[in-house]
Amino acid sequence: MQCPIYTLANQSYNTILYKENTPGGTKVNIKGFKFAGIRAGIKSKNLKDLALVVADTPATAAALFTRNRVKAAPVLLGQKVMENSRLQAVLVNSGNANCFTGEQGMSDARQCTDLTARELGIDPDLVLVSSTGMIGAPLPMDKFESGIPKACTRLSQDGLKDFSRAIMTTDTFEKTVHKTCIIPGPQGDVEIAMIGVAKGSGMIRPDMATMLAYVFTDAQISPDLLKQALTRANEKSFNRITVDGDTSTNDTVVCMASGASGAVIAKDKGQAQFQTLLDEVCLALARHIVKDGEGATKLVSIEVRGAATRKDAFKAAEAIAHSNLVKTAVYGQDPNWGRIAAAVGRSGAMVDQDKMDLRFGAIPLVVQGRWQGQHAEKEAAAYMKGDEIQMVLDLNLKDFSDQFLFCDFSENYVKINADYRS
Amino acid sequence: MQCPIYTLANQSYNTILYKENTPGGTKVNIKGFKFAGIRAGIKSKNLKDLALVVADTPATAAALFTRNRVKAAPVLLGQKVMENSRLQAVLVNSGNANCFTGEQGMSDARQCTDLTARELGIDPDLVLVSSTGMIGAPLPMDKFESGIPKACTRLSQDGLKDFSRAIMTTDTFEKTVHKTCIIPGPQGDVEIAMIGVAKGSGMIRPDMATMLAYVFTDAQISPDLLKQALTRANEKSFNRITVDGDTSTNDTVVCMASGASGAVIAKDKGQAQFQTLLDEVCLALARHIVKDGEGATKLVSIEVRGAATRKDAFKAAEAIAHSNLVKTAVYGQDPNWGRIAAAVGRSGAMVDQDKMDLRFGAIPLVVQGRWQGQHAEKEAAAYMKGDEIQMVLDLNLKDFSDQFLFCDFSENYVKINADYRS
Repeated sequence: MQCPIYTLANQSYNTILYKENTPGGTKVNIKGFKFAGIRAGIKSKNLKDLALVVADTPATAAALFTRNRVKAAPVLLGQKVMENSRLQAVLVNSGNANCFTGEQGMSDARQCTDLTARELGIDPDLVLVSSTGMIGAPLPMDKFESGIPKACTRLSQDGLKDFSRAIMTTDTFEKTVHKTCIIPGPQGDVEIAMIGVAKGSGMIRPDMATMLAYVFTDAQISPDLLKQALTRANEKSFNRITVDGDTSTNDTVVCMASGASGAVIAKDKGQAQFQTLLDEVCLALARHIVKDGEGATKLVSIEVRGAATRKDAFKAAEAIAHSNLVKTAVYGQDPNWGRIAAAVGRSGAMVDQDKMDLRFGAIPLVVQGRWQGQHAEKEAAAYMKGDEIQMVLDLNLKDFSDQFLFCDFSENYVKINADYRS
Repeated sequence: MQCPIYTLANQSYNTILYKENTPGGTKVNIKGFKFAGIRAGIKSKNLKDLALVVADTPATAAALFTRNRVKAAPVLLGQKVMENSRLQAVLVNSGNANCFTGEQGMSDARQCTDLTARELGIDPDLVLVSSTGMIGAPLPMDKFESGIPKACTRLSQDGLKDFSRAIMTTDTFEKTVHKTCIIPGPQGDVEIAMIGVAKGSGMIRPDMATMLAYVFTDAQISPDLLKQALTRANEKSFNRITVDGDTSTNDTVVCMASGASGAVIAKDKGQAQFQTLLDEVCLALARHIVKDGEGATKLVSIEVRGAATRKDAFKAAEAIAHSNLVKTAVYGQDPNWGRIAAAVGRSGAMVDQDKMDLRFGAIPLVVQGRWQGQHAEKEAAAYMKGDEIQMVLDLNLKDFSDQFLFCDFSENYVKINADYRS
């Protein structure tokens, strides 16, 4: 079996999506990793809030962090830890972002690292910590002092579900993806597996949620190739989604490769398959994050084609995906192409309004800058009643294209974000 | 009386604001201009929709148009008309934006110009047309053929109220400002007057509203000085407001100077006073537009100080003013400084999170990157119950500052924009 090339249009992921309140679910594990997720008491509600993943031996690792210039303490510390490109453990807490906490925050993040390393009997340089939750309050260190040993005793090959629950904040469902593919090798074909876990909802709510994603694989791969693959996959997935454009202070994407499958990825040896697998896992997680966007009722993809430059394609797609007017129109199931034209017009991308084509699904709404009339609009409105909407805008200038995933914008988004702390 | 220097903080405008359903109001007129506003039948509802202003003789004029690359036909035509820097008449219709209408739209805009010029017996090069309303539908030319002669017969010195009503779309109140100042001259002091009329709500709703602003003065001024003054005033006012970041395809700001007061503005002769007057009029109109933002309940100013560069100050202020998370927090009367820090962090401006000061009104919420605790937060929350909120963020790096006006973001914004066409 070859890894299929992914398309946004027609997802055929064998994703494993644990539904809220579905006890059990399919148990998934991956060679070389153990997981735990417990309640340490960091959150005020009775929910799991401390997650731990430990590799049997030090794993090759790559990580990407938020580009926000206000960075949480665990992100600042994580950038240093990742200089060695090796990790054996990742500790994640929800309920407190340890951001805007100054020197105390750095010292607390270091202490969490040390407590974890000591308990596991490993080098602190092999431990990454992540935090997500409220900005500004110090970490409740007593909860970590009792919680970390407890989490270490619960580590299990089957602990993925607990891990994924413990990193959630406002997420309404767990976001877990499991995929495999076959790498041809000198001793015959070898299967490699990959598991992705994420929490949302990305850029929605930097004081209560941050986008965290962790990908684990049993393939063996060099740090350089892993970093390159993760950067590419991230560019196509997490960097092409938006809920409300507010990037967080804590965003972190980590990939750990245990090598336990025995399959070795090298330059031009399984590299393409590995990249595709990682792309698919990251894209599936990205879809889940957008789908779970606060107040979201629809998942939308905008593909811009025919742009004059690669940057123009990006700018046009991004402007549409971020437009509150487009997002409210999607919520209202209104194929309001005027708002799309206005958004692309202000994006800075080169446009010729008499050349643009726009279709919603298979329905051409604008052809060569001309609205196709009431009939087309009615068809498009009917199409928009669906849960997933595809928009394709062809600028008909040159050959560059790009794509964004976004969600609609409902009263519920406003309600959630206006009322949160009151 | 000197023109006072304006501050955003403490507005002391002698604005004349006609309230909805207040018949009459104060009658304001300005030397050298006549106004009309009638119902031509362009809107389906029984509302005025055609406005006309005519100067007694050709006036010096300057105009600024949308930077959106998708431009409505009247904007494209207006750019040509303005090459002469002279105008005698401006015709504005609401209810139809004449945008995305191709060659037909250009030809219709030209015909509106010609009909107006013929009826007034003036050169078509002295006529500017503006349109605002739905994108995509052709102008109903029969309504203009009957409407334009009717508007010409209604021209009156006291017609400003009719004019300002006829350019409204979703505005909930008319936006009119009247100010005067004294210019010292060789023959003694001379009073000059300025009237500004605008409609919103700017960037909110490009298919149903566009920001149009018209300023009339009886001063005499050269085209170059007028263009320079308008550009400066615009930069400080209309370019520093946001409702939702969606710039429209029809935005137009025009200033006409009749010279009827006899006061002559020349380089360093009354120029500073004229600039201040124009700044104040534009800023007052800008405030009205934000205040009337769709669903808005609060008017907010964010001042960024101490930025490392002028561009950084702009970027930081703009990112905060555009953040949906900040705007929903304002709506919820929540002094959520974490969201402000996250927005400035992603703005691209240089920041040192351990140096930032943030205050809401006079209440310091963050000092040198440290949250000032529950007491300060409670005070700030109480302050946020007011209608107008001032936020000052000091980055404490260098000396550059900038300021934005914005409104909050309520469920009502979503409701209005999701349901509009259904």
